Parts: sequence; structure tokens; C-alpha cells
Amino acid sequence: MAVEPPTPGTARPGGRTARVRAAVLRAAEDALVEHGFAGLDLGDLAQRAEVGRTTVYRRWGSTTALVADLLTDMAEQSLPRARTGSLAGDLRANAQLVRRTLADPRQGALFRAVLAAANGAPGTADPGTTEALRRFYRRRVEEWAPCVTEAVERGELPPDTDEFEVIRAVSAPLYYRMLTTGEPLDEAAADRAAAAAEAAARAGAYRRP
Amino acid sequence: MAVEPPTPGTARPGGRTARVRAAVLRAAEDALVEHGFAGLDLGDLAQRAEVGRTTVYRRWGSTTALVADLLTDMAEQSLPRARTGSLAGDLRANAQLVRRTLADPRQGALFRAVLAAANGAPGTADPGTTEALRRFYRRRVEEWAPCVTEAVERGELPPDTDEFEVIRAVSAPLYYRMLTTGEPLDEAAADRAAAAAEAAARAGAYRRP
Repeated sequence: MAVEPPTPGTARPGGRTARVRAAVLRAAEDALVEHGFAGLDLGDLAQRAEVGRTTVYRRWGSTTALVADLLTDMAEQSLPRARTGSLAGDLRANAQLVRRTLADPRQGALFRAVLAAANGAPGTADPGTTEALRRFYRRRVEEWAPCVTEAVERGELPPDTDEFEVIRAVSAPLYYRMLTTGEPLDEAAADRAAAAAEAAARAGAYRRP
Repeated sequence: MAVEPPTPGTARPGGRTARVRAAVLRAAEDALVEHGFAGLDLGDLAQRAEVGRTTVYRRWGSTTALVADLLTDMAEQSLPRARTGSLAGDLRANAQLVRRTLADPRQGALFRAVLAAANGAPGTADPGTTEALRRFYRRRVEEWAPCVTEAVERGELPPDTDEFEVIRAVSAPLYYRMLTTGEPLDEAAADRAAAAAEAAARAGAYRRP
């Protein structure tokens, strides 16, 4: 079913504008998972999403803008940080969330496609996608950083601990494992990533200079 | 100057076969840095390298095989592990080597291009390149792992420490920083990666289950 362009003033949460956006973003995910960023085409996405081409071109204008919007949506849909009461519990929850996302066939393929689009060779990497991807990770790191600052307040970590570096340290080994080894992203790998980040943080490895 | 296909029996280190290989691999690096894996073409590479097309097709047969050979060459050309006498010194040397490689405009672009080719969407990722890339990292991790086993022998680390995980833990935050943030890969980031891996290893975070 084709959806007409929204009439000005009709946009509301859950309304036609939101439905169109959801349909086009899901179509963009499908296309990224199947063919990567280079295979994206706004006309194809409009057809996949059963949305008018004019709507898609007017709303997003370019595949870069569409992927940026997809990353905004992914950040908005991502789960809020844990509040387990301990640094160990919070970091483990973070690691398991990252692990589940990357190990999920669809989500994992989506992240690999966007990472490839943002980090390929100069002639192929897309600068707008690079910026949108960095924004996505900044938002996710900021969401989880209070787990670390609260641990500092509880006296679990040195007072000058860089909370962003601790959160990044939880994700880093899981991404590295995915990108450079064929080894599974299992729960043990996630628990180890969390435990290592916690131990290094306690030892002062992430203190600000 | 075009180089003729090698006559059987004439191949020797530093001879024509080695010169042809070096010229074609350098041409492949140039092409990867400029256009990524998708832009590779054996005929173009033969022309760039001033080598006969027949030689290139006969020797490598596919761009996948050529990139696999390039990764083999990169592993062979990589520096041997450090022997500073301390775990802290060895891991710092490893981190600074990884940092210099990724921060180098040409080497860094080359790694990003190959990582993208090996990890893109299912329709775009190249399985042969994925396997070659994993082999490359396995070789590099194996090269540096004795720094950890020697530290275990010196009593610096728990006896059941997984030496491969410790070496991977040094690289992981540098790759993650490169792929997900716009922050520079500076010496401080490398030293922090080494110090964090060491602290986590000392605390037992990489003990085998």
C-alpha cells in the first residue's frame, strides 16, 4: 500500500509521518543487511517500504541522510542503561547488551554494514555516515557513563576516572573479536570484557591525565 | 616496464618473481587505499604494477587471492615482538606499534579498507578476505603472545592467563577508537590501552575458565 506524503500539520507521534518513517527505516535496514551501503537507493527503498518516492526524496534527500536518521532511530530505540547498584553488575549488563546486539544476525549485520560504510577506503567511505555513526556511539556512551560516575561517588573507583573510556573499554573487545576473529560472541566473552574493564578501572588505568 | 611471466625454476628470493609480487602487492595497496576492495581489478593492477596481465591472472587468479597474499605479506613484514624484559614494557611496545600502524595515513586506510571488505554486509563481504584477515590477526597475536607467557613464567601474572586474550585486549581499544570516534590515536591512548590490559591481566580477568 502506497502512503501519501504527509499533509503539513498532520505529523504526530504514531501518526502517518511516524509510520512512514518506520517503514522506510526498516526497508533501509533490510537493504543494508543484504547489500551494504553501496547498494542503497532511495527509489528502491520507497518501493520496498510501499511509500511514495516523492515522500522519501523530500524527507531524506540522500542515502547518507537516511542512514543518519536510521542511526538516530537506533540510538533512540536502544535500551536505557542498567541500574544494578554495583559497577560490576552495570558493566556486565552493558557488555551483555552489546554482545546480544552484535550476535543478533540482523542487528550484527546492520552494524557491520554501517561500520564498513563509515570506515572504508577514502573513495568509498561516506563522510556523513561517519559523522552519524560517531554521534550514535557518543550517545550510547553518554547513556551508560553514569554507571561509572555513580561508582566513583560510591568510592568504587578513583575520583578522576574517565567514565567514557570505561564504557568504551567494555565494548571494544567485543567489536575487536567480531571484526578480527571467527570466535563466537558468547556470554563468557561479554563477562570477561566487563570484568577486564572493571579491573583496569579499579587499578586506575582510566584516570584522566 | 612490463615484466614477463617467470620461467619455472627461476623464482628465487629477490629475483624476478619476488619483484613482480612486490610490485603487484604495492599496486593492490594503492588501489585499496583509494577505492576499497570493490574497486579492485586484476587487469588494472597489472597495468599499475607494469606487469603482464597473464602473470597476474596466472599467479593470483582472483582479487580475493591477491588480498589474501597481501595480508600474508603484511604479516611477514610486520615487526617482531618486543623483548623489554617486563610485561608493561612489552605491552606498551605492542600498543605503540598498533597505534603507529593505524595512525599512518596509508597503513590505516589499508586496514580500514580490508576490515570493511571482510566485514561488510553479507552481499558485499568477501569470505576469502574474511578468512585471510583472521589469519593475519592470528599470526600477529601469536607473534606477541610470548610476551605474556614469559610474564607468567616470571610470576607477573596468574598461571592460567590466556595469553591471546591479553594481546587482543591491547589492540581492541585502539581499533574501537578508530572505528567509532573521531578522536586521535595518540600515544596516550596507546599507553592507556597497554596499562589497562596489564592491570586486567594482573587482576585475573583473562584467566582461562
